[in-house]
Amino acid sequence: MVLVGEPTPSLESAAFSFLLPGGCCYDPPQRAGLAAITCEMMLRGAGPRDSRTWIADLENLGVERGESVGVSQANFGGATLKDNLPAALVLFADLLRRPHLPCEQLEAGRSACLQELQAVEDEPSQKLMIELRRRRYPDPWGRPSHGEADALRAITIDDVRAFHTRNYGPRGTILAVAGNFDWRRLCAHVEQLFGDWPAQKQSEPATTPNPSRENHIPFDSNQAHVAIAYPTIPYKHPDYYQSWAAVGVLSSGSSSRLFTEVREKRGLCYTVYASLHTQRERASVLCYAGTTAERAQETLDVTVHELLRLADGIEQSELDRLKARIKSSLIMQQESSSARAGSIARDWYHLGRARTLDEVSEIVDALTSESINAFLHDSPPRDLLVVTLGPEPLEVPVGVS
Amino acid sequence: MVLVGEPTPSLESAAFSFLLPGGCCYDPPQRAGLAAITCEMMLRGAGPRDSRTWIADLENLGVERGESVGVSQANFGGATLKDNLPAALVLFADLLRRPHLPCEQLEAGRSACLQELQAVEDEPSQKLMIELRRRRYPDPWGRPSHGEADALRAITIDDVRAFHTRNYGPRGTILAVAGNFDWRRLCAHVEQLFGDWPAQKQSEPATTPNPSRENHIPFDSNQAHVAIAYPTIPYKHPDYYQSWAAVGVLSSGSSSRLFTEVREKRGLCYTVYASLHTQRERASVLCYAGTTAERAQETLDVTVHELLRLADGIEQSELDRLKARIKSSLIMQQESSSARAGSIARDWYHLGRARTLDEVSEIVDALTSESINAFLHDSPPRDLLVVTLGPEPLEVPVGVS
Repeated sequence: MVLVGEPTPSLESAAFSFLLPGGCCYDPPQRAGLAAITCEMMLRGAGPRDSRTWIADLENLGVERGESVGVSQANFGGATLKDNLPAALVLFADLLRRPHLPCEQLEAGRSACLQELQAVEDEPSQKLMIELRRRRYPDPWGRPSHGEADALRAITIDDVRAFHTRNYGPRGTILAVAGNFDWRRLCAHVEQLFGDWPAQKQSEPATTPNPSRENHIPFDSNQAHVAIAYPTIPYKHPDYYQSWAAVGVLSSGSSSRLFTEVREKRGLCYTVYASLHTQRERASVLCYAGTTAERAQETLDVTVHELLRLADGIEQSELDRLKARIKSSLIMQQESSSARAGSIARDWYHLGRARTLDEVSEIVDALTSESINAFLHDSPPRDLLVVTLGPEPLEVPVGVS
Repeated sequence: MVLVGEPTPSLESAAFSFLLPGGCCYDPPQRAGLAAITCEMMLRGAGPRDSRTWIADLENLGVERGESVGVSQANFGGATLKDNLPAALVLFADLLRRPHLPCEQLEAGRSACLQELQAVEDEPSQKLMIELRRRRYPDPWGRPSHGEADALRAITIDDVRAFHTRNYGPRGTILAVAGNFDWRRLCAHVEQLFGDWPAQKQSEPATTPNPSRENHIPFDSNQAHVAIAYPTIPYKHPDYYQSWAAVGVLSSGSSSRLFTEVREKRGLCYTVYASLHTQRERASVLCYAGTTAERAQETLDVTVHELLRLADGIEQSELDRLKARIKSSLIMQQESSSARAGSIARDWYHLGRARTLDEVSEIVDALTSESINAFLHDSPPRDLLVVTLGPEPLEVPVGVS
């Protein structure tokens, strides 16, 4: 287990972020959703405290808590006043190491997970982006964490307990702390809480090709939703920030190309964006636009045109605006202990070390339109995958394989 | 125009929030959506800058910008590095006082507003909460700001210009600034930018009763959505924090009553909440739960039971947990210049003065279970309005008039 910290004595708060190898890529066959149910059940009592007491004691410390299950990892995080950090970590050591996973609460936990799964059916934009990732990556790397209904219904409490034992442990686990804390005292405290945590015997999932699927999802509505993905380099790649800046020119801020061409000039969409989605070994640019059925083809055509046009390079003025926005957001991130805890945890996962904001700032300063254009020349957007959801399929534009 | 500031020299950022009387309550008959289109058009060039230049210059200052149109007010806000605050305010003075409202961009702006309106049709939870507010308040106070399709299509550029002239001006306008800035220099700068802004001649909207509407909205889905509203006291009322704490016991945190009874014990929903929605003259508790069609009746019954049970009072331990969470969130709010700028602007609108976080903290300290229970005894939840969206209507539970 890795402990990484970034003290900022000017803050009154402290935040922590646990990244653990409990993502849905570890769901066994016919058990899609097991990682999600396990996370749900871990919150229902741990160590000397039952479900109600654990939550009450955490809230009495003023902790704002959040957890999520991704493909590779589960994330448990919290933020509170600096003086309450040690006591909050005691509660999370119980949660992670000694959860009760109570049999009598399994049905309620399962039901909450089924409700989440079914809620997505009513949210077409979310549903489409799930289907985009499912098609873009080989299994298990494009799975949605909320699983499948039949599999969720089949899960037993023994499945949950086995998942916890197999996947939760110090190997691959990162605890990041940011805000106002003393590093030496934190180290001693974490050593006491986690030093004797026995290593788990986790096996890495096998990557398998996806079955082929239809790229249009029929949906009875006057709205149509368009999603596009293409491969790019992951965060750990030395050229990552070149790719990231190119996506910024495409989609960051109101002067970005997608916002200007799709929304401002043509009023095709209320929402349009491209974002960089990175796992440790693979990454994509994911793009979304929601519009009316009658303007869906135009929206798709304009969006694809803007993506492919990146290959011609970006302008210096576009980069200047992007740099100004990033500089400002880096400073504001420094004022948020939660944002910093999340960032340095992810850094360690991807890079094996944490970047300070000064270091990120230097990387951004070093970006030039020449460096980005050299990257785009060698790695232009290609192999575009288009997935649509709406009343009718669309024509795939020229230039999309 | 009022300028209100809260300097926090330990931050590197500065944030501002303009509240202006440009909300959709001022939409004329047959022009529902005019406030929203006006806001959209104001972003398309102002003062010496055309649309692209205004946005580019703002982004070169690293400003993170956001705007929204509510019932009573329009809100334009931004956050940036402390040194860029004066230049950002120059751009916003142009935006607010000298927007071009260009005729040739009206169709694109209208189309973006129509897209937003239609997107809501695909989002059942959002649609339901709009319908709840529409039924809960007399017109115009429950209107959605995005207007109606026929009205949006009829709007001309003269309508937009007239709306701007009539409603945007110094009367009723509040500019709040938080973060790292010098108060005296800010005052001089704002005086220079806004001191000669002529007062607008705005007329207050008339309040009229709502036409009666069906309280079930048919929606073809396996999901059902339940919304409940009841009246409470607005922010400016001296007992506001008593009501607010009672809603906190109901819905703030994982130990709250709704979370415990609806989600944790029964697994009925993935999302359930109650929140306090306050205007200057009227306020409501608004409650939402989304579930499967087959569990919708049970969800409604349990939720209503929890709302009505508030009349029996709260426990000291519930209040203790709530206070701990609030204390922590107040400290974290102090570390966000954006959050503080928004808060002090709203304070001034509701109260005619800004509360410091120390003052809020004292109010929270003074809350007791006795004070809250006395309030709940005198003002129990009553006149519950239930609106549902899903495949079938539900039975209105006992205790709901």
